[in-house]
Amino acid sequence: MEIISPIITPFDKQGKVNVDALKTHAKNLLEKGIDAIFVNGTTGLGPALSKDEKRQNLNALYDVTHKLIFQVGSLNLNDVMELVKFSNEMDILGVSSHSPYYFPRLPEKFLAKYYEEIARISSHSLYIYNYPAATGYDIPPSILKSLPVKGIKDTNQDLAHSLEYKLNLPGVKVYNGSNTLIYYSLLSLDGVVASFTNFIPEVIVKQRDLIKQGKLDDALRLQELINRLADILRKYGSISAIYVLVNEFQGYDVGYPRPPIFPLTDEEALSLKREIEPLKRKIQELVH
Amino acid sequence: MEIISPIITPFDKQGKVNVDALKTHAKNLLEKGIDAIFVNGTTGLGPALSKDEKRQNLNALYDVTHKLIFQVGSLNLNDVMELVKFSNEMDILGVSSHSPYYFPRLPEKFLAKYYEEIARISSHSLYIYNYPAATGYDIPPSILKSLPVKGIKDTNQDLAHSLEYKLNLPGVKVYNGSNTLIYYSLLSLDGVVASFTNFIPEVIVKQRDLIKQGKLDDALRLQELINRLADILRKYGSISAIYVLVNEFQGYDVGYPRPPIFPLTDEEALSLKREIEPLKRKIQELVH
Amino acid sequence: MEIISPIITPFDKQGKVNVDALKTHAKNLLEKGIDAIFVNGTTGLGPALSKDEKRQNLNALYDVTHKLIFQVGSLNLNDVMELVKFSNEMDILGVSSHSPYYFPRLPEKFLAKYYEEIARISSHSLYIYNYPAATGYDIPPSILKSLPVKGIKDTNQDLAHSLEYKLNLPGVKVYNGSNTLIYYSLLSLDGVVASFTNFIPEVIVKQRDLIKQGKLDDALRLQELINRLADILRKYGSISAIYVLVNEFQGYDVGYPRPPIFPLTDEEALSLKREIEPLKRKIQELVH
Amino acid sequence: MEIISPIITPFDKQGKVNVDALKTHAKNLLEKGIDAIFVNGTTGLGPALSKDEKRQNLNALYDVTHKLIFQVGSLNLNDVMELVKFSNEMDILGVSSHSPYYFPRLPEKFLAKYYEEIARISSHSLYIYNYPAATGYDIPPSILKSLPVKGIKDTNQDLAHSLEYKLNLPGVKVYNGSNTLIYYSLLSLDGVVASFTNFIPEVIVKQRDLIKQGKLDDALRLQELINRLADILRKYGSISAIYVLVNEFQGYDVGYPRPPIFPLTDEEALSLKREIEPLKRKIQELVH
Repeated sequence: MEIISPIITPFDKQGKVNVDALKTHAKNLLEKGIDAIFVNGTTGLGPALSKDEKRQNLNALYDVTHKLIFQVGSLNLNDVMELVKFSNEMDILGVSSHSPYYFPRLPEKFLAKYYEEIARISSHSLYIYNYPAATGYDIPPSILKSLPVKGIKDTNQDLAHSLEYKLNLPGVKVYNGSNTLIYYSLLSLDGVVASFTNFIPEVIVKQRDLIKQGKLDDALRLQELINRLADILRKYGSISAIYVLVNEFQGYDVGYPRPPIFPLTDEEALSLKREIEPLKRKIQELVH
Repeated sequence: MEIISPIITPFDKQGKVNVDALKTHAKNLLEKGIDAIFVNGTTGLGPALSKDEKRQNLNALYDVTHKLIFQVGSLNLNDVMELVKFSNEMDILGVSSHSPYYFPRLPEKFLAKYYEEIARISSHSLYIYNYPAATGYDIPPSILKSLPVKGIKDTNQDLAHSLEYKLNLPGVKVYNGSNTLIYYSLLSLDGVVASFTNFIPEVIVKQRDLIKQGKLDDALRLQELINRLADILRKYGSISAIYVLVNEFQGYDVGYPRPPIFPLTDEEALSLKREIEPLKRKIQELVH
Repeated sequence: MEIISPIITPFDKQGKVNVDALKTHAKNLLEKGIDAIFVNGTTGLGPALSKDEKRQNLNALYDVTHKLIFQVGSLNLNDVMELVKFSNEMDILGVSSHSPYYFPRLPEKFLAKYYEEIARISSHSLYIYNYPAATGYDIPPSILKSLPVKGIKDTNQDLAHSLEYKLNLPGVKVYNGSNTLIYYSLLSLDGVVASFTNFIPEVIVKQRDLIKQGKLDDALRLQELINRLADILRKYGSISAIYVLVNEFQGYDVGYPRPPIFPLTDEEALSLKREIEPLKRKIQELVH
Repeated sequence: MEIISPIITPFDKQGKVNVDALKTHAKNLLEKGIDAIFVNGTTGLGPALSKDEKRQNLNALYDVTHKLIFQVGSLNLNDVMELVKFSNEMDILGVSSHSPYYFPRLPEKFLAKYYEEIARISSHSLYIYNYPAATGYDIPPSILKSLPVKGIKDTNQDLAHSLEYKLNLPGVKVYNGSNTLIYYSLLSLDGVVASFTNFIPEVIVKQRDLIKQGKLDDALRLQELINRLADILRKYGSISAIYVLVNEFQGYDVGYPRPPIFPLTDEEALSLKREIEPLKRKIQELVH
């Protein structure tokens, strides 16, 4: 049962990555019990980062830990290949990529070719990142059978879909990427890649502890709190809200997202904090 | 009734833009009666181009014509702003942007802010590019009311949706972006932005001529041919197929798309050409 | 260019069909220029009628006209067959059926078998009723090729979809069923089956007249009014609103829908009438 | 952790309900450990049954057990009310109804009124049946807050959605209706209403036993088998396949579904049996 954090990318007000804040944040997450970092994921605004920014993020985090999955996805395969080559020299867990996106109705074989190209050149294991609601593509197990896939991050509300990967790709680790299904994923998959680890890593680590101890009901209570949080965050734009809540829950500044993922206004940040206040207290009671 | 071409971006095998091929292609389209060029659209692989490539495309085409709508959309607003500023000095029809994409469930006000930022800094008219099937967002007329919108490209199979823009935004020009609805768009909207203009500009110009002459049935017959073509292209990956068909119908080479929009293999290209052969003959009869 | 009315079924407050009101209504529609009546369609609450009610509706309308398409669809094929047999003796335009509905993921061949059974036993031509948003099934042309299909009512916002039927089933008449696309359907298909004929038959007949006279812009203006009306009706529940508007526009009472298609409350009816008042005046100007 | 069976309705070849087969089947399910019977559910072809057939099913099963939830849903509220009144005299667990269906875009308040009417007249507790994929409506917790709801059957692949009901309606029992999520539902909800109980009740009862004993991995292995079965059944039309598999797994005949839910042909039935053979063996090993 691994808990992986799709780490946010901290920006300053001008839209430059704040490398120090990224490192500080990663260190804290690892100290709180997170097993690995998913770099340049959706929460990390991966698809909004340039090739250089993606590389810079990897470099920065490599100083902190080697427990890294490096997301390299892009609509320019040349950029993807450069990033893969760059990471070949590094001792990391693996490289990952979401599927192509934006362009509707690409033939399925384009997806297959895309991952084959990555696999062909990479010295690392491959982690597939399936996120149909973002990309428009649901990667079928069939095109993965002949590839050196080590893991799949399936961001999907249907757990039977994640199980399907396990059934069709024996030996491949499957992680669900939804915050609202962590309890279930820990009970049936190889773990989670959950964006809420950015601000409440303790809660998710605690869920795992409770499950290991057989205290399923307590773990489920935590899930209910997480789902209440998720309902609130959605109203503010979930990713933008996380930047505010890292400070609120973990006590240090991680800057801002970068527009068009706009930061919350001061007013919105205040309103968000007020709204989660009762849940925050409950969480602190349950975790400590 | 304007006919606007969302021009393809020709790449060489290494993924570099072939600026000369782009110019040659644009010249031909204008000679065939196309009214304006939509630069860096979906068919132009806009979302897959870097900021520099987008600028380069504009520069190249500016040598050929000033009838240009410059699509600047990106998931990095800083890049968008740079491109807008760059184009401010140029005498073009306007700037355009698709909405943010990939990130699910962004609050509607993020879309509003995004376009406000562009409008604030641009010296040109604004052309909104609505393409829900690609971006996941359907831009509501309400957020456009206070912006200096000159036109909307609505890529949408529901013509009532395009009409809705016209009804709610008087004075704004509305273009539908679907090849399979050109006949209808010419009969009710301000025109079309249609990717098939890349290889059969004559057919679409002819459709307009026929409509102007009141020969609706003949125009509809051409639409039926277009829709048969569309069915075939879809099987090959429509954008990739267009590169092959420009050569097939217009007689010059426009290179390749760039992976992960993979070029057709030789086999696929051959099979495509065979499949469209009977339609090609019919088109040539009807147009000449 | 046929205009077909999917006639409402008038109920009294107890939920009994008011046969006299149905006849009066049908007579008026025909006098206003409607070509044929679609009996027991969606607007007629077909799927909510018992077998006996469906038969009763046919019988009643048969006194008024033989220009009838008899919708017999049901989730019990025995009932369907009884209705088909019943109508075999009658001199009507044809029988129709929507596809099975409610049950998700029925194999496509179930749809084929369903229509084969109807065709096998019917002495009349077959009108297919395709309404994916209601049934969950989009009937593919392929399963219709070997059946004696005379017409297809395609209730679908994508006109390219309706055209697809025409292209694949030569000789078959295709009608679109959307009120918001009447203008387009008249310009490219064999006509419309439009629920708004229940309260503004004159407008739709006028649209056709204008199109025949080549006054496309005037016909399009009427479409815009229709689409504004459609926006308003949707807020009240479109079918329920039609009962109120028949009285408002045509001057006679057609009773109520039957719950769970609830009638509007007096308050809602009043509010609806107020909201459409400016459009009503404009329509009366344009039609007379 | 309750296990409820949405019992199939056995028909003879002429489409008449075989009451004796229904009773035999119900007795067996209860003997195998099923807690209650959901009468006239989707698997029972509820929406395809007449009012009299729905009542007959209740009557027949009432001879066998009083652990009955009586599904009364229909597109004619008068029929619904008659069935509710009929059941008021009987000592059953409660009445249930799916939402209205088929008619797109009914206002939300129609759903509220529908359930209010049922609640007003029923002497029994209310079980809401939410099945968006079949009905097109996702019943929001808000309209249920003031109603005497005892339980909700949520047929939905997203467990966070089922949890949402629990969070918003304290005290209400929530059951998920998906076969492929039984393991998860038993671990977090009040139980399941699962159609596969019709042919493998032992497996699902065993899953519950394993979970109670803390043998989660073993329960998950059974879920994997169930999901493999589900994949196979889907190809044949899941409901139709269940009729064949009741005989195959439980050893008695339950007749046929009623068209347009067509029975499998002999060939299809044979092919289905062959395909599930290896899973059948595995199941028998694991259960006994």
